[in-house]
Formats: sequence, structure tokens, C-alpha cells
Amino acid sequence: MNQTTTTLSESELELMNAYWRAANYLSVGQIYLMDNPLLKEPLSKEHIKPRLLGHWGTTPGLNFLYVHLNRIILNRDLDIVYIAGPGHGGPALVANVWMEGTYSEYYPDVSFDEAGMTRLFRQFSFPGGIPSHVAPETPGSIHEGGELGYALSHAYGAVFDNPDLVTACVIGDGEAETGPLATAWHSNKFLNPERDGAVLPILHLNGYKIANPTVLARISHDELEQLMTGYGYKPYFVEGDDPETMHRAMAETMDRCFDEIAEIQRRARVEGVTERPVWPMIVFRSPKGWTGPKVVDGKPAEGNWRSHQVPFSTVRDNPEHMELLETWLKSYRAEELFTPDGVLLPELQALAPKGKKRMGDIPYANGGLLLKELRMPDFRDYALDVPKPGAVEAEAPKPMARFLRDIMKMNDKTANFRVFGPDETASNRLGDLFEETDRTWMANTIPADDHLSPDGRVMEILSEHTCQGWLEGYLLTGRHGFFSCYEAFIHIIDSMFNQHAKWLKVTDSEIPWRRPIASLNYFLTSHVWRQDHNGFSHQDPGFIDHVVNKKSEVIRVYLPPDANTLLSVTDHCLRSRNYINVIVAGKQPAWQWLDMEAAVRHCTSGIGIWEWASNDAGGEPDVVMACAGDVPTLETLAAVKILHKLAPELKIRVVNIVDLMTLQPKEEHPHGLSDRDFDDLFTTDKPIIFAYHGYPWLIHRLTYRRTNHPNLHVRGYKEEGTTTTPFDMVVINDLDRFHLVADVANRVESLRPQAAYIKQYVRDRLIEHKEYITKYGEDMPEVRDWKWEE
Amino acid sequence: MNQTTTTLSESELELMNAYWRAANYLSVGQIYLMDNPLLKEPLSKEHIKPRLLGHWGTTPGLNFLYVHLNRIILNRDLDIVYIAGPGHGGPALVANVWMEGTYSEYYPDVSFDEAGMTRLFRQFSFPGGIPSHVAPETPGSIHEGGELGYALSHAYGAVFDNPDLVTACVIGDGEAETGPLATAWHSNKFLNPERDGAVLPILHLNGYKIANPTVLARISHDELEQLMTGYGYKPYFVEGDDPETMHRAMAETMDRCFDEIAEIQRRARVEGVTERPVWPMIVFRSPKGWTGPKVVDGKPAEGNWRSHQVPFSTVRDNPEHMELLETWLKSYRAEELFTPDGVLLPELQALAPKGKKRMGDIPYANGGLLLKELRMPDFRDYALDVPKPGAVEAEAPKPMARFLRDIMKMNDKTANFRVFGPDETASNRLGDLFEETDRTWMANTIPADDHLSPDGRVMEILSEHTCQGWLEGYLLTGRHGFFSCYEAFIHIIDSMFNQHAKWLKVTDSEIPWRRPIASLNYFLTSHVWRQDHNGFSHQDPGFIDHVVNKKSEVIRVYLPPDANTLLSVTDHCLRSRNYINVIVAGKQPAWQWLDMEAAVRHCTSGIGIWEWASNDAGGEPDVVMACAGDVPTLETLAAVKILHKLAPELKIRVVNIVDLMTLQPKEEHPHGLSDRDFDDLFTTDKPIIFAYHGYPWLIHRLTYRRTNHPNLHVRGYKEEGTTTTPFDMVVINDLDRFHLVADVANRVESLRPQAAYIKQYVRDRLIEHKEYITKYGEDMPEVRDWKWEE
Ligand SMILES: Cc1ncc(C[n+]2csc(CCOP(=O)(O)OP(=O)(O)O)c2C)c(N)n1
Ligand SMILES: Cc1ncc(C[n+]2csc(CCOP(=O)(O)OP(=O)(O)O)c2C)c(N)n1
Ligand SMILES: [Mg+2]
Ligand SMILES: [Mg+2]
Repeated sequence: MNQTTTTLSESELELMNAYWRAANYLSVGQIYLMDNPLLKEPLSKEHIKPRLLGHWGTTPGLNFLYVHLNRIILNRDLDIVYIAGPGHGGPALVANVWMEGTYSEYYPDVSFDEAGMTRLFRQFSFPGGIPSHVAPETPGSIHEGGELGYALSHAYGAVFDNPDLVTACVIGDGEAETGPLATAWHSNKFLNPERDGAVLPILHLNGYKIANPTVLARISHDELEQLMTGYGYKPYFVEGDDPETMHRAMAETMDRCFDEIAEIQRRARVEGVTERPVWPMIVFRSPKGWTGPKVVDGKPAEGNWRSHQVPFSTVRDNPEHMELLETWLKSYRAEELFTPDGVLLPELQALAPKGKKRMGDIPYANGGLLLKELRMPDFRDYALDVPKPGAVEAEAPKPMARFLRDIMKMNDKTANFRVFGPDETASNRLGDLFEETDRTWMANTIPADDHLSPDGRVMEILSEHTCQGWLEGYLLTGRHGFFSCYEAFIHIIDSMFNQHAKWLKVTDSEIPWRRPIASLNYFLTSHVWRQDHNGFSHQDPGFIDHVVNKKSEVIRVYLPPDANTLLSVTDHCLRSRNYINVIVAGKQPAWQWLDMEAAVRHCTSGIGIWEWASNDAGGEPDVVMACAGDVPTLETLAAVKILHKLAPELKIRVVNIVDLMTLQPKEEHPHGLSDRDFDDLFTTDKPIIFAYHGYPWLIHRLTYRRTNHPNLHVRGYKEEGTTTTPFDMVVINDLDRFHLVADVANRVESLRPQAAYIKQYVRDRLIEHKEYITKYGEDMPEVRDWKWEE
Repeated sequence: MNQTTTTLSESELELMNAYWRAANYLSVGQIYLMDNPLLKEPLSKEHIKPRLLGHWGTTPGLNFLYVHLNRIILNRDLDIVYIAGPGHGGPALVANVWMEGTYSEYYPDVSFDEAGMTRLFRQFSFPGGIPSHVAPETPGSIHEGGELGYALSHAYGAVFDNPDLVTACVIGDGEAETGPLATAWHSNKFLNPERDGAVLPILHLNGYKIANPTVLARISHDELEQLMTGYGYKPYFVEGDDPETMHRAMAETMDRCFDEIAEIQRRARVEGVTERPVWPMIVFRSPKGWTGPKVVDGKPAEGNWRSHQVPFSTVRDNPEHMELLETWLKSYRAEELFTPDGVLLPELQALAPKGKKRMGDIPYANGGLLLKELRMPDFRDYALDVPKPGAVEAEAPKPMARFLRDIMKMNDKTANFRVFGPDETASNRLGDLFEETDRTWMANTIPADDHLSPDGRVMEILSEHTCQGWLEGYLLTGRHGFFSCYEAFIHIIDSMFNQHAKWLKVTDSEIPWRRPIASLNYFLTSHVWRQDHNGFSHQDPGFIDHVVNKKSEVIRVYLPPDANTLLSVTDHCLRSRNYINVIVAGKQPAWQWLDMEAAVRHCTSGIGIWEWASNDAGGEPDVVMACAGDVPTLETLAAVKILHKLAPELKIRVVNIVDLMTLQPKEEHPHGLSDRDFDDLFTTDKPIIFAYHGYPWLIHRLTYRRTNHPNLHVRGYKEEGTTTTPFDMVVINDLDRFHLVADVANRVESLRPQAAYIKQYVRDRLIEHKEYITKYGEDMPEVRDWKWEE
């Protein structure tokens, strides 16, 4: 499979190899040196960093690929984004971006000369310097590559709707063992060569991960070839360790691959071929730590896992290691690569593309630069008619779906909006989207298929990881998106959320040249309270808890209680930038509370008294009944009605929370209420009965500094559940109307005389409930048919 | 590839098909009926459940496979565990387990007759009944299958060290799209046919998931075959929709597969062949909702995604649907399958294995039955010699590694202990394990390889999902295990943790016949404070927050501050049952505080005053300095030293917390301190400065009900980080000794007069620190060389 014919001239080859040597030199320098970058003096203690931090093993391979991609860009005038799956190879990307001149443009202090080279070396993994990974700080990066697994889904996400872009996606053979990566290969069934760009996966088979060989390096050539073919690719193998041979083979192979990509795109775009093509990919088998020391302390280093991190440390105090380092550095013959002033020789500079074609400067990798506003209709036009609170029943996501559908339509030309989900779009009541678009599908179809097409803009694959990775890649390259998911299973991407939140935190607060991108919007539905078909395994509202641990600057959590608030919140989220927005709302038919005007007011404040449900106007209440989430809101209102009947004199204030972050102190979150505002809403001394959608402790964590916190009593999901009726779910978690009534009776001093009666009433109703559902299998009529009546 | 020769006799075929019809009948009955199970009366409203909940689509396929596996068990006297990846097909497993008689033995109320059948139907997805999935309630289940993706890793985990077991693992073609499943195929590179059992993966290619076709059903036969071959399997295709043909093909194929499995095992066990074999697997392509209604309301149902859940509802009020249901049920001709008393005909009963061979009654699936105590040396023998606090520096995991090594040795014969990790065992300082065992490895090897062998008992693959899935399968079948992982990346399995915690909660509290299994033990290291090589993406201590949302009965969290406490905690965790234990401790050289005796005392209480670090003996302190976690403990002690110097009269109490759950109220967690004990430790009115390993809010969430909570001030990780020095990491999160000193100065009233001086001292040190590290790249000598001196 290796190509033997050559396309590289001798001089080209020599230059490319020199370029590679320079990148390798600069990489080793970053890991080891803090001074004397050109080795003008003999290497000595003061030149060596006291702490040697970084990863060498993957770096020469990444460098090797960079210069070959540069050649492709120059020869073909292409736009390429480089994704380094092994993001721990930070030195490689930084070196190359510096060599092409980009780095000094973004960071003028790190100039393109000896002084700059000193800084370049010193800053790497150094306090006050730059991280060891291909972090947001690295120009050209959209992929930090710290947590392994997402390189390929990011790569695909980046090229959807970017027909002129190719991502070259380097995948570590270790990373290839992760689940998210193993399924991301199937993304080719969702890539339309007519409308989308292309991904060139390069499996970096350097044989090892941290301390183990990799699985894919230790199966037969045949098996690996079949695996890649089975995934739908045409694999090309570039294998060896002799630089010259490898340069020739890689140049030849890249030419073939890019020829094939061009041909696939031509067939689709010019000839109108619509079948899924077989895309090329490269298996790049080369030694880990290539060109590094062959042996360290008597053990193999090059071509071994031992070169994964820093191949040898204790350089300062170990003369042998000092010599080893010097020999290693000198093996690159820097004097043939740089002027005495530390400038890369002009003939080498010529190997890098210019301007925006440089992979370090490509605008796609700073997506905010390309971001176009999403065209959006007025969400008020999709309002559900709610003549009065509790008069209409509806499935909240449906109006939102129509809103999304029309956003889809309005941005059809710009092609910068997609909806993602793990096979739940229809089930989550977003089916109206299919009036405007289809599901993306490039695999085989049959006539009975439902809304599948290569042009679809709804992306469904049963992999939350892939959905998340695609969406991140899509957003990071300057587009907009929306992710709907079962609430419980969004935990599958907890760690991916972490990484994206960290990326946003850094870009938002520390990297001015990174322009804001569209927010990542989650719509979590099929939530804990309505898992009628499923049960305990599908009941988990904890994603919110996970989210609020991240920087308050980048996270937002909304619990709209009905359709119009959901619409308003959705509109807000889609307009926002650099956030992660979490929206939680049910999909089942439910009572509607607010007309659009009230909904907008309520969502704009994020929290507020529902006057129509309260009877304490003009004075202080006896109790505050707070609620956040659709089901808790229903139960609270039903409890209020019962209390009105049982204790008509009781003054109740109903407070509904849409924006959970309002509960936090202002100093903790930009949406936080001031203490004064909080105290005015919740009083400073009255009992608060708080019905919350999720784990109750979260409310305490958000409010423990508030004046009235000692009187706050929260009900929520306490990890009880099974397949049962909707009302029984709230009952077994003590969140139902009856428990709430009892909570009030237990805490309001003025009810003391009646408390026993009230609690007996509650007990009786709960017994009735259990008996009824066990007999009839559905909720009691008084619950099923409950209605808010003025 | 389909077999045309037949091995089934006509009568066998007829009986098997009848058995299948019976299972299908009982499945439909469970979904739809609450009475009239044998249709002795014409179907009418009262017989139909008011809420129709469940999943039909996958069910006939699961039933089909069950009867074929029964045949294999009978013919070959095998032990087979059935794993239903599409666990939503609960009715199938329940039906079959009932038909083989197991169900009535476990649940005598659901007897093996008409009354039992009525209950069987009624209870399914019914309040007070059973869940819709293959839940812990289902005899024979070790896999609930609610959250898709883990079937195959569970299947492999179950057969490691169980040479006589085969798991038949049904994988939905939808589930096959998930990341965890896509990589779990590679588990065959870790399965040793000599010592382990076998897995027969059956890819259930019914073409659809919820509302979409599946990727694997819509690639060519060739691609699918190559994919499976590439994964290292020999795929057999059984494809079609004619029951007779399919029965013949399946019987033939299963015979082949089990022949091959037997032959592989024979070669390995008798002939000593050590190469990785190519294991068989089955691609079972059959219609979704097979034998269900072909058309519902004018739309295709059988063979379409529309039959995924309940193919049609509103039966009670829709005469057409009522008729459809009756026709459907009658198509199975129950009268030919059951006696008028609802007993399965004896000739059909004969098709099920007997006793413990029944898949519903197989002891492997109730692992606690088989659980053998882990033989363990006295952990005290591994104690680190700590002559006095702070006199010795050590890497805490190392003594633990030696302890684990010897546990490995002592249980070598019983072969019921393994250690799991994503390629980090050595890096996490557990390398001493390799003195006793190797890494499991069945793929190719080369001479330079390090401790790889088919007999290794350390399982490393770069997939946290696979490690977790293997371990769960291993534990659920009655063995012991230990999982070490980078702290940040354990979030990758957040959702898997959820599912296992839910499983344990249900088995522990609700299912007496499920015997306790060994706890799932996490050792989280390379933690947030010491990501020297990596940086921000590797910094996340939030797994603890995630864990504490689950039922307190099943979760435990430990933060041992040094080596001896880590040993003691590890011993405790390995002896425990039905828990998930989370242990967090660093791997870097660090000061040691407690000798073994003190460590045991401290760990047994879980929390305590460190007298040697306190100077308030005999009275009340001015301030309580609490700490949990190794790095916070170090900073607290260093702060105490500074305070002793700056304010010698200040009375400081140092409280260290190993067992985080002691902080919670007793009512919330079995380890929680009583309020009295808590108040005695933390006082009721003195400032508490709490230095915590993770996100500080968690401490508030655990303690908000405690008397002295208003005076509690917590420092922890506030999501600031990068690649920097160890001390700078605590500084940028305000957790360092200097900030702690300032916190004390800010809060202790008696220090008021000196506060300005103290705070200026702190400021100056912090400025010095920043200047020093930016210049020298490592921490100031006073920090690096800090030592606790009496
Ligand atoms: C999800 C995840 N688990 C574990 C790690 C720890 N880790 C860092 S690098 C590495 C090995 C990577 O091997 P490979 O992908 O082959 O990269 P390369 O050989 O090019 O360095 C591991 C396991 C990680 N970064 N991410
Ligand atoms: C991780 C995860 N994501 C989403 C779901 C929701 N869900 C339930 S069943 C299903 C389709 C399953 O399809 P398949 O595996 O083919 O099973 P079958 O066709 O046999 O029902 C989906 C997406 C889930 N259960 N788990
Ligand atoms: Mg590698
Ligand atoms: Mg399917």
C-alpha cells in the first residue's frame, strides 16, 4: 500500500526535512531550556528549566505532519485546520505556529528572533507562561486535546457547512481506544461532500500510550485495514522510521488523499453524485519520540513508551543527562536552520503558507471571527395563547420546535444552524423541525424512510459523545447549534461539558484575540419526573449540579415552567455568546401558566412573585412557596389551592424561579439577586417551602449565605424512583402537593392549632393515592383532572 | 455466509417456534393487559391497562435468542448469562424467566398458572409492580440496559476468570453507535481463552432505534463484515424474517459458534495455544417488532422504527386498536401453548434448562452468591515508618501498591481480584503490582514489552468506559476489583457510576434475594492540585460532588491525607460490600503525618482533632482550622506554623477529615456525626477555616444544618488553573497557607489589633511568590523546603 514513486524533488525533500528538524529542535527547546536557545554557549545548569514538564513522544510526529500539510496548502491553496488529538504535544503546534510567523503576530513579545525564541522556550509549561497542551492560547487551535477522545468528532463538527475547509485530524493510537473516538469514525455517514468540507483522519500509530503499547498497533496490518475499511474509509499506510523514505511516502500519500478528496467533492458538486463516498485516511506508523535519544539510562527511549513525556529529567544535576540533551539538541543542527539571530532561514520560511492560509492563523480556528448573527423571527409570534393561568394544556417544546423550525428556514442560505440529538428529536416533541428540514443521512436509505436526507440539518446519532463533539466543533468554527437530550443521559457528556466550559472560561477571560462564539445550548427534557416508559435508570437531574461547579461567567441554568417561558428562554440562549446554557423542561402535556407578555417579564427577571397565585399582596406573607421547574410548579400551585381551602386565612406568596442563578449571591454569579432583592422576595424570617426540580441540596448550596436560609426547606428529587405514575413519582420523593401542604403546616406557627387536622388530611390523601394507583394503574381523577381555578 | 444445512428436526423447530410464540404472547400481554390473560373472554376495556408503557420493538428478537440459547444450554450443558443490551426489552426477559419457572420461585405470588400470569401481566410497568427494563428485579440480570452502551464491557467483565461461563451479549444496533460500545469490541484483546470464559456478541440488527434507522443496518454487508473482522471477530450472519428459516439458520449458527468457542478453549487449555483467537459473533438481522402488527393507522409497524415502543395506544377507547390487539394476541394461538389453567405445556417446558442452568437462575447473575472473601494481609504490615509528624516524605500510593500486590498474590489461586485503569497504573505509582502480576494482553507482543501477558491481572485500556464496564461486570458476578484513574477524567464515567449506584440502591434496599457484592473502589489520583505536566483541562475535583447526589446508603468518600491513612482506608474499602467507595489522594512525594496506629484511629473515626498540631487542649480554641485532602492538610499545617509565629497566643484547633460523609447530619448519611459530636469538634461559635480538596460549596452543602455553619469559611478549588507550580496552584485558588492565615486574621476577633500586620505579611509573601516563580520557574525555597518542626 506504501507508495514507491516519488513526487518530492531532492531539494524539496531536504528543505522539508530541515523544516521538520527546526520544529523538533524548537520542541525540545521548549521542554528543556530556559535560556541559551541557540546553544551559543555550552549547555549548563542555568539554561535548564528546574521543572521539566511536557510530552515529547507525540511531538515529532505532529511536527512531521505539519510540514506536510503546509506543503499541501501551498500547492493546492487549501484551508486546513490542524487538530492534534494528542494535544499533549503542545510544543509541536507552538513551534510550528511560531515558525510560520503567526505566533509573534498574536504574541509580539515572543518575537521572531533569538529573544523571541528565548521567550518561546522559557514560557512553555512555566509559571506565567503557557500551558503544556494545544490550549486556547495556541493560535490555530480548536481542540485542546487534554482529555482524549474528541478529536474526530470535533474535526467533523468543524467542516459541516464549511465546504471549503479540510480538517487534518491527528488521532493518537491511544486516543483511538476511547469510546468517543471509536464511534466518531462513523461520522462519515453524516458528511455530505456537496455541502460540507472534508476530514482527513490521520491515525498516529506511534505504537504506545503512557506505559503500554496500543491495541491498534498490535493487531495485524490486515485487521487494521479491515477495521478502517469497515468504518467506511480507504486507509493509506505510511510506515517506517527513515526520515527520507517517510517524507517521500507521506508527500505521495497526502497528494493522493487530497486528490481523492478533491475528486469526491467534484463528483458531488459538479456531477451531482449523492452516494456516500469512501473517504481516504492515513495510518501513520512512526516511532514514538522519533529522532529523540535512542537509549536513556540503558533503556530504550526512541520508539518506546518511555519517550511519552520527558524522556529524561534531572538534567541540571546529572552530567550524563546534560550531555545527552546537548547531543540531542545538536543533532538537529540548528545552525543550518536559523540565522545567528534566531530567525528561521528564508528558504525554510518559504515552506509555510502566508497570511490567513497559515494553520495558526486560519480564521476557522477563531470561529468568533466568522460568526454571523443567527437570523431569528420574533419568538413572540410563536406564543401559545394562554387566556389565563392554568386554562390551557400543552406540550411545552412544541411552540419552541416551530420557532426552531423557522430559524432553520431563515438561516438556510447562510447554513449556520443545526440541531443535534441522540435519536430523540421527534420523541422530544421537536418533530415540527421536519417540516423545514430532514435528518442528515448519507448512509443507505429505503423508500419507507422518514425525513432522512444528505441535506438534513438535524443530526441524530445514538451517541451523546458524538453529538456533543460535533456541536462543539460546529460552534468553535463560528456557527450556532442546539442540543436536545434526555435529562438523565446528558451525564454521558459531563466530562466533555467540563472541557468546553474550561475552554470558554480561558478564551473569555484571558485571550482577547479569541472572538466570542455562540453559546452551547442544551435542552434537557424527558426529565426525571416523567420517565413513564422507563424508570429509575432514566431519572437523574444532577447535570445542573455538575454545571454549577464551573465558572459562573460561562454557565447559565434555566427551568422554564411552561411553553411561553420556554420560548423566551430559548430566544435568549440562542442570542447569547460564550456561555453554556442549560434549559430543563418537560415534554408532556401540562398546564400553561403565563401568556407571552407575562412570560417575557418573568424570564427577563429570572425570578418573580406570581401575583395571581399569591394572596399576600400589600403585606408580608405567612409562608413563601417557591418553585423551580415545571413539575414542582404544578405541585406548588396545587398545594396552594389545598391550603386556600384548608386554611383560607393563610397568606401565601408564590415565587417562581426560571433562572436558577438568581438565587446565588450577586458576587458569585452575574445573575445573582442582591441581598436586598432576595430578602424582599423571600422575606427575612418567614418559612420558605421550596419545590425544586432536582436534587434539593443544590438550592442550599446556592442560598446558604442568604439571610433567610435557616427557614428554607427544600423538596426535590431524593433518588427514589421506578416505573410508576407521574404523580407517584413526586409522592415517593415527598415533592407532591400533599407533602408540600404538610411542610407548610409543620412550619407556619400560626397554623399550629390546625396542623394536626391538615396533616391528617394529607396522610389520608396519600393513602388513597397509593391504593388507587395500585388498583387502577393510573393517577386518581382528582390529580389527573386537577385544574387551577380562580 | 448463511447456513443452509439444517440441524433442527421438524418437531424441534415446531416446538422452538411455539416456545417463541409463547414468549411473544407473554410479552405483548405484559405491555397491554391487566386481566383476561388467556383471552378467555372477548377483549374489553377493563382488560387493558390505562397507561401502555414499554418497548415492543426489540422484544421478539430477544425472545427468539432466548429459546435458541436454551437449546444450546440443554445440548451442551453450558452456563450462560444472557445480557440484553436493549434492556428496554424487559418483557422478553421477564416472560422467559417466568416460562422456565424461575420467576415464580423468586416471586411466588407470580405463580406458574393463570393467576400468576394475570399478575405477571399486571405488574409490568405498573405502580407497585416492576420496572419496564431488565432491572435488578429481574432474575438472571446483571445488566439493566437502560442507559445504552455498556452491554459488551459488562459481558467481558463477567467472564474474566470465569472459564466455564459464556455470556451471550445482545447488542442493539442503536446501542452499537454509542462510544462505549464501539470500543468495547476490542475487549477481545484482553480475554484469555485459557483462564477466562467466552463472550458471544450478537449484534441485533433490527434496523432501527427510536425514530431512525441505525448506521450499521445501513452500510453494506461487506462494510459490516469488514468492521467486525477488523474488530477481531468472525461474523456469522443470520438474516431474514421467515420464522422457520430463521430458526434453522440460528440453530445452525449457534451450533457453529459454540463449536468454535469450545474449540478455541480446547486449543488454549489442552494444546496450550497462546495466540489471540478470532472469536465468533453473530449478526442477527430481523425485523423490529417482528410478528407484531404490520400496519397501524395506515403506517408500517413491523420492520419499522414505529414499533420501537408501544406500537399503538389508546386501545381502551379505540375499537379498531382493540381489535388489532386482539388479532395480534390471537395470532400466537395461546391455546396451543398453555393449558386452560395458564400453565406452559410440558413439551414446551422441556425446552428450558433446569435448576441453576436456567438463565434466570444462574448464580453468576447473583454474584453475591459466589462471592469469596478476599484474602488480605494485615495492611499494618505495609505501614510507612513515620517516627513523628512531618518527618518523612513519601509517595502515598506506594505502600498501598505493595498491599495490593500481596492481595493479588494471596488470591492468585481463587483468581478473583483485578486492578483496572486507563493506562495509568505505573504513572499512578502502583507499579509494584508488576512484581506480582502483569498487564493483561492478548494482542501481539515484542521483546521490549514491559509486563504484558495473557495472565496479567492488571487491566489497562485507554478507555475509562471499558475499565468501568469490565469492573462492573466483574463485581456483579461475585469478584473484587480496584480502579485507579486520574481524578479529572473519572467524570468520563459519571453516568456509568450513576447506573451502578442505582443498581446497588435497588438491590441493597429492595431485593432481598440479591446477595451483597464487593464494593466498587475508585482510587482517584493525579489530582487537581498536582497536574504539573498538564494543566487546566486535567483539573477537576467534581466527581465527589457527583457521587454525593446518590443514595447515602451506597456511597462513601475518603480523603486520606497521607500514606498510612490511605492504607487503612484501602483495607476498609476492599472489605466493604454493596458500596461505591471513592478514595482521593495524591501520588507526588509529600510529607507524612500519622504513624500506623494513629492512622487507624483517625480513619476509624473518619474525622478528628490532630492534637500535635493544635494548641487549644483543655479549652476552647479561638479558631478551628479544618482540612480534608492531602494538599489542603499541608497548607493548613503550614498556616498553623505561620500563625504560631505571628500570633503565638492564638489557640488553634486542627481538625482533619478523612471520611467526608462524617460532615453530614446523621440522618442524611450513616457515617454522619451527631450534632453534639459535630458541635464539640467544630464549636458552636468559633470561626472555622476549612481547607478542602474540591469545590468549596460541597462542604456547605454537607454542613448547612450544623449549628456553627454561619461561621464556616471554606477554601477549595474555584476553577482556576493552568500549567504552573504546585504551590501556585493553591495560591490562585486562595487555598494556600498565606490566604488561610489571612482568613484567620479576618475572622478571629481577638486578632483585630494585629490583623493589618498579619495581612500585610501575607500580601508580601504572595508577591514574593509570584515574582520568584515567574523568574525561576519553581516554588520559593521556603515553600519547597518547608517542614513541620515541633
Ligand atoms: C480520557 C483520557 N484518559 C487518560 C488520559 C491520560 N493520558 C494522557 S496522554 C495518554 C496516552 C495517549 O496516547 P496516544 O493517544 O497514543 O498519544 P501519543 O502516543 O501520540 O502521545 C494518556 C492515557 C487522558 N489524557 N485522557
Ligand atoms: C445512552 C442512551 N441514549 C439514549 C437512550 C434513549 N433510547 C432508548 S432506546 C433507544 C434506541 C435503541 O435502539 P437499539 O439499540 O437498536 O435497540 P432496539 O432497536 O433493539 O430497541 C434510545 C435512543 C438511551 N436509552 N441510552
Ligand atoms: Mg501513541
Ligand atoms: Mg435496533
